[in-house]
Amino acid sequence: MAESWATLGVDLHLEPVGAGGLRRGLTDALRDAVRSGRLAPGTRLPSSRSLAGDLGIARNTVAEAYADLVAEGWLTARQGSGTRVADRVVAPPAAVAPSRRRPGEPVHSLVPGTPDLASFPRAEWLRAARRALAAAPFDALGYGDPRGRPELRAALAGYLARARGVRTRPDSIVITAGFSHALRILGALLRARGARSVAVESYGLDVHWELLRGAGLATPALPYDGLGTDPGPLDAEGAVLLTPAHQFPMGTPLHPDRRAAVVDWARRTGGLVLEDDYDGEFRYDRQPVGALQGLDPDRVVYLGTASKSLAPGLRLGWMALPPSLLEEAVAAKGHIDTCGVLDQLTLAEFLTSGAYDRHVRSARLRYRRRRDALAAAVAERSPEVRVTGIAAGLHALLRLPPGTEQSVVQAATWQGLALHGLTFLRHPQATTDPLDALVVGYGTPSDSAWAGALEALTRVLP
Amino acid sequence: MAESWATLGVDLHLEPVGAGGLRRGLTDALRDAVRSGRLAPGTRLPSSRSLAGDLGIARNTVAEAYADLVAEGWLTARQGSGTRVADRVVAPPAAVAPSRRRPGEPVHSLVPGTPDLASFPRAEWLRAARRALAAAPFDALGYGDPRGRPELRAALAGYLARARGVRTRPDSIVITAGFSHALRILGALLRARGARSVAVESYGLDVHWELLRGAGLATPALPYDGLGTDPGPLDAEGAVLLTPAHQFPMGTPLHPDRRAAVVDWARRTGGLVLEDDYDGEFRYDRQPVGALQGLDPDRVVYLGTASKSLAPGLRLGWMALPPSLLEEAVAAKGHIDTCGVLDQLTLAEFLTSGAYDRHVRSARLRYRRRRDALAAAVAERSPEVRVTGIAAGLHALLRLPPGTEQSVVQAATWQGLALHGLTFLRHPQATTDPLDALVVGYGTPSDSAWAGALEALTRVLP
Repeated sequence: MAESWATLGVDLHLEPVGAGGLRRGLTDALRDAVRSGRLAPGTRLPSSRSLAGDLGIARNTVAEAYADLVAEGWLTARQGSGTRVADRVVAPPAAVAPSRRRPGEPVHSLVPGTPDLASFPRAEWLRAARRALAAAPFDALGYGDPRGRPELRAALAGYLARARGVRTRPDSIVITAGFSHALRILGALLRARGARSVAVESYGLDVHWELLRGAGLATPALPYDGLGTDPGPLDAEGAVLLTPAHQFPMGTPLHPDRRAAVVDWARRTGGLVLEDDYDGEFRYDRQPVGALQGLDPDRVVYLGTASKSLAPGLRLGWMALPPSLLEEAVAAKGHIDTCGVLDQLTLAEFLTSGAYDRHVRSARLRYRRRRDALAAAVAERSPEVRVTGIAAGLHALLRLPPGTEQSVVQAATWQGLALHGLTFLRHPQATTDPLDALVVGYGTPSDSAWAGALEALTRVLP
Repeated sequence: MAESWATLGVDLHLEPVGAGGLRRGLTDALRDAVRSGRLAPGTRLPSSRSLAGDLGIARNTVAEAYADLVAEGWLTARQGSGTRVADRVVAPPAAVAPSRRRPGEPVHSLVPGTPDLASFPRAEWLRAARRALAAAPFDALGYGDPRGRPELRAALAGYLARARGVRTRPDSIVITAGFSHALRILGALLRARGARSVAVESYGLDVHWELLRGAGLATPALPYDGLGTDPGPLDAEGAVLLTPAHQFPMGTPLHPDRRAAVVDWARRTGGLVLEDDYDGEFRYDRQPVGALQGLDPDRVVYLGTASKSLAPGLRLGWMALPPSLLEEAVAAKGHIDTCGVLDQLTLAEFLTSGAYDRHVRSARLRYRRRRDALAAAVAERSPEVRVTGIAAGLHALLRLPPGTEQSVVQAATWQGLALHGLTFLRHPQATTDPLDALVVGYGTPSDSAWAGALEALTRVLP
C-alpha cells in the first residue's frame, strides 16, 4: 500500500512549465512509469491529496491526471480500493526484423525504368502547384470522383489525342497511382468478369505478371520475333498486355500487321488489349507511332504514366477505358479516388499551360544525346556488341556475343555498375530462343553521373 | 482506283505551318479521314508522288506520312497494290452512359466525415511544399520504400507519440492513401492469414464494412450500450474494428474496462484490434484520451488520417503496425508506394515545422465554437432534442423524440439540407435498440456557410 509518492520510488521528472502544463507533464510521467514497468501492475497509487502534497501542486491536477490515465486504461479506479496500476502486463514492442539492405549501394546505375530524376522540373512544378491550388474550388479538397479530378481528365483527353492519337473523352479516363495500380484494377476487373488468363509478352517486367497472377490470372507468354510479339496463339484469354509503341525491353515497335491482328482478335473474341504506353513520348528519329488504342477504343485500354516523362514518385498514371468498362473499373478501384488531388490539379495545370510539352521536349533532347553517345561508344569500343531497337525511350538493348551475358552482368556488379541482363526480363515460359543482351537504362543517371556510368559500361563490355 | 487527291473528295485542312510541320499536319488529316469513315476501308490512296504534286509539297513528306500511318495500322502498304486504307471498320466509341447526378445539389450540408475545406491552409501548405522539395534528394522522386517516405514516417512516429500516446517507430509505420486504403490492406492481410471475419461496431460506415466484405470477410456487429461497444461476444474473429477515442457516430469514448477487455481478447486469441483514430486530435473539454494502441503495440493496429485534420483530398493516412505484421502489410500493399512523394514530404515538413499543430489548434477552436453554437441553438429552439456524446470531433449526435428521425431527415431534404439520420449508420445486424437521432457534421460547412446551415437545421428539428 503506497500512500505517498516517496514510497513508490519513482522519479517523475516533472517539467513544471512543459508544453501541456503540469497536468500533461504528470500524466505523461505516470504513463511512462507504467509502460516501462517501473510501476508494476496492481500497484496502488497514493491518493491525489497525498501526491499533490508531495509534489507541491494542486490536488485537482493530480485527480485529473489520474482520470486521464484511467480513461486510457493504464490505471483503474474502484470505489473502496483507490487508484491502481491496471492489472495487465504491457509488453514492449518486439524488435523489428533487420531490413534486407544491400551491403553497398552500386556506384552507377543503368537499371531501366526510371528517368533522370535530377532533371525533374521542381521550380516549374511548384509554380504550377501554386496556380492550381489558387484556382481550385475548396470542395476540390474533399472526397472526389473516384475516376480522379475532372481538370486532369480533361487535360489528358486533349493531350493524349494530340500527342498519342488516343481517342477518348474525359469521362472515360481514370486516374491511377501509376501503372501498377492500373494493372491491379484491370486484373480485378478481368477476374470479376470471369477471365482466367491474360497473355503477356515473352519479355517484360516480372512485377507486372506477378500483379496479374495475384488477381488469380494465369499469364501465358506470346512468342516474340523480328516483327515484335506474335498475337497468333491468342485464343480465349481475357486480355493481352502489350507495349506496342516500343516493346519493353526489346525496343521494337509492333509491326502494323500485328497491330491489326491483335485488334481483330479482340473484336472476334471479346477480349481486351491492355496497351502499356510507358514511354510513348520519347521517339528521336521520327514522329512516334500513334497509340494502338486509336484503332479501336472499344476494345483497347490505353495505359499511360507520368513515371517516365516526369517522375515515378508522383505516383500518377491514367487509363483511357472503353466506356462500357467504366463502371467495373471504378468498382475495382474501390469507389474512392486514391490519388492526391493536389498533384492531380498540378499535373492538369502543367499539361494545359504547355509546361509538360516543354519538359518532354527538353527531356527528349537529353535522352537522344545519351542514346547517341551510347551507340557511338559501343561502336568504337565493342564492335562485337550491337545497339538494337528503335531510337526511342529511356533504354537500349545491347546484343552481346552468345554466352557472354552472365559474365558481363557479373563484371558490372564487381565494378559497382547496376544493370539488367535480358534474362532477368524474360518470361519463364518464353519459347523464343534465348538471347544474350543487356538492357541499358541510359535515362536513369543524372547528367553529372551519366559520363561515369557510360565509361563503366564500356569497361565491362566484351 | 484513286490516283489523285481530287478524286478522293476529301478536304484535308492542311495547316502549312502547324505545330508539327507539314508532315504532322498531313498525318493527322489522313488519320482523321480514315477514323471518321471519310476514307473507306480498302480505299486506294494516290501515290506519294501524285499527292505531293496535288498538294504542292515535297514527295518525301507524303511518303513519311504514309509510313507513319502504316506503322499505326490505319493504312496498309503492299508490294504491287499500293497504299490502301486498312481493311477494318473503325467503330466510333460507344456513348458514355449518362452519369447518375442528383438533380439538384443541396444548399447546405451537415453530412459528417469532411472537415471545413475552405480553411485548408493553402499558403502554409505551399510554403511547406517548397521547403520540402528544395530539401529532398533527387532520388526521393523515384520508386520508393513501399512503406512510404522515411521523412514522413519519422515525423509521424514523433507526432503520434506526443499527441496520441502511440508507441511506435518509423520502421513500423506504413503510409496509405487514406483510411479506406489502409482497411483494404488490412482486409487482404487478414484474409491471407486465414481470418473469416472482422467484428465491427453496431454503428459506423457501411463503406468500411463493405471493404472488409470485399476481402472475403464477414462483419458481425458487436452490441453497443452506455459504456460504448461491448467486446464481450468477441470470439474467434480475426480482428475487431473500433473507434475507441470517439465512437463514430455515437460520439462516446470506449469505457476503460472495455479498452482493457478488448486488448485482453486480442492477447488471448491472437486477434488484432484495428483502432480507427479518425478525429483523435479534436477534443474540446480536456486532453484527448490516448490511443488504445499504447496498451499493446503488438496487438493493436493504429490507423490515422489527414482527412479530418487537413483534407480528404490529400489521400494520406497511416498505420502504426505491430512489427510482426509489417512484411505482410507491405505484401498486401503491393510492394510499391502508392502515395505521391511530394505530398508525403510536404506533410513531413508540415509536422516537423509545427505548422500542423498550429493548424490543428486553430481548427479545434473553430469546431469547438460551432459545437457550442449547435448545443446552444438546440437547447433554445428544440428542448426535446438532446446533443449527446463528448465534446470532441467534427460531428454531434442529436437524440430525437422516438419515431421522428425519418420525418426530420425528410424535412431536411426538402429544405435543401443534407444530413444523415442515425439509421443510415446502423449495422443491418445490430441488436441494440434502434434510436432516433441525427448525426450532424458541424465541421463540414465553411465559416461563411455555417450560420445558414445551423439555421436550416434548427428549422427542421422538432
